[in-house]
Amino acid sequence: MTEPGLLIIISAPSGTGKSTLCRKLISNFPSARYSVSLTTRAPRRGEVQGKDYFFVSKNEFKQKIKRDELAEWALVHGHYYGTPKDFLKRNLLRGKDVVLDIDVRGAMKLKKKYPQAIFIFLAPPSFSELERRIKWRKRNSEATIKKRLTNARWEMGRIGSYDYLVINDRLVDAFTQVKSIIVAEKSKVNRSEEKIKKLNLI
Amino acid sequence: MTEPGLLIIISAPSGTGKSTLCRKLISNFPSARYSVSLTTRAPRRGEVQGKDYFFVSKNEFKQKIKRDELAEWALVHGHYYGTPKDFLKRNLLRGKDVVLDIDVRGAMKLKKKYPQAIFIFLAPPSFSELERRIKWRKRNSEATIKKRLTNARWEMGRIGSYDYLVINDRLVDAFTQVKSIIVAEKSKVNRSEEKIKKLNLI
Repeated sequence: MTEPGLLIIISAPSGTGKSTLCRKLISNFPSARYSVSLTTRAPRRGEVQGKDYFFVSKNEFKQKIKRDELAEWALVHGHYYGTPKDFLKRNLLRGKDVVLDIDVRGAMKLKKKYPQAIFIFLAPPSFSELERRIKWRKRNSEATIKKRLTNARWEMGRIGSYDYLVINDRLVDAFTQVKSIIVAEKSKVNRSEEKIKKLNLI
Repeated sequence: MTEPGLLIIISAPSGTGKSTLCRKLISNFPSARYSVSLTTRAPRRGEVQGKDYFFVSKNEFKQKIKRDELAEWALVHGHYYGTPKDFLKRNLLRGKDVVLDIDVRGAMKLKKKYPQAIFIFLAPPSFSELERRIKWRKRNSEATIKKRLTNARWEMGRIGSYDYLVINDRLVDAFTQVKSIIVAEKSKVNRSEEKIKKLNLI
């Protein structure tokens, strides 16, 4: 028997560097993989079916909602997005850790269904630093900036619902911190049943 | 305001390499210090008052028990040993982490008084490996070996009362694991009140 993998849920306000950190995490933990979302939006150039997203029709998506096959889902700008349950289950049971990069609203939905998951909030060093980072992205319009900041403010008010807070000041430090969280969670006695059995047998 | 320090309680069967690991921990974490025990036994050559132990008379020790100044205490081979409460309190309030190297019985007493403490059990890679290590120490008599092994067996049955299990196969790995546990515990949201306040203010 292998110990089940960890479900690692990471949320962060836009502009905090979450994607970079998650990529670094996946490439450093051979046992970790990304949770691939289901979506009804069309694939963009270069996006690969089953790697970036599982692209499905609206009908298929609705069928999956009806059959309770999604861990969470949301409708954003007319497109459906969701997390397939079977992908999580299959990997966790095999002892693979699954990294789920999701917004605060989605994370809150998962909290009820996956209380054993590890909830990490990645925050910018300060709110003013986040403002600077969002504004610095030239392509953002005034309206987008304003919307993102309002949303970030709301999201940062939800930190209390997470297990861990990691502040992304320097990427290398934030990465070490997230790595430590994973190592520590794997050392928890209530996740070491198999190890304890082995210890006492031999 | 600083966040209070962590109370890190480490237990291990004799022969697991606990002292080496604790020393490495203290020298690597500038914020960490050893909890110095109180004892009524006479100082051995080279032992320093206030560094290795606080050496006191039996009378003084009994006074401290009466005044409830000890976090835990025990009588071993006619000598009293105990953990002074004020040392823990003073350091933790200043934000210093305190490492308390203590046997399983002592740790269980502390669990009730310090539920916020972090309980780490350091185990040998296997019971047979522990046997080999204890026997290898030539100065141990047959009777000592037998007593230590019986005790180790009992102690390993208490792992379930700890928070974390670290297996000391290679010291460098065990050390990384304990370090990760400390970093992770410091990242817990319920220990980040001050960080969260700061984030939202600036």
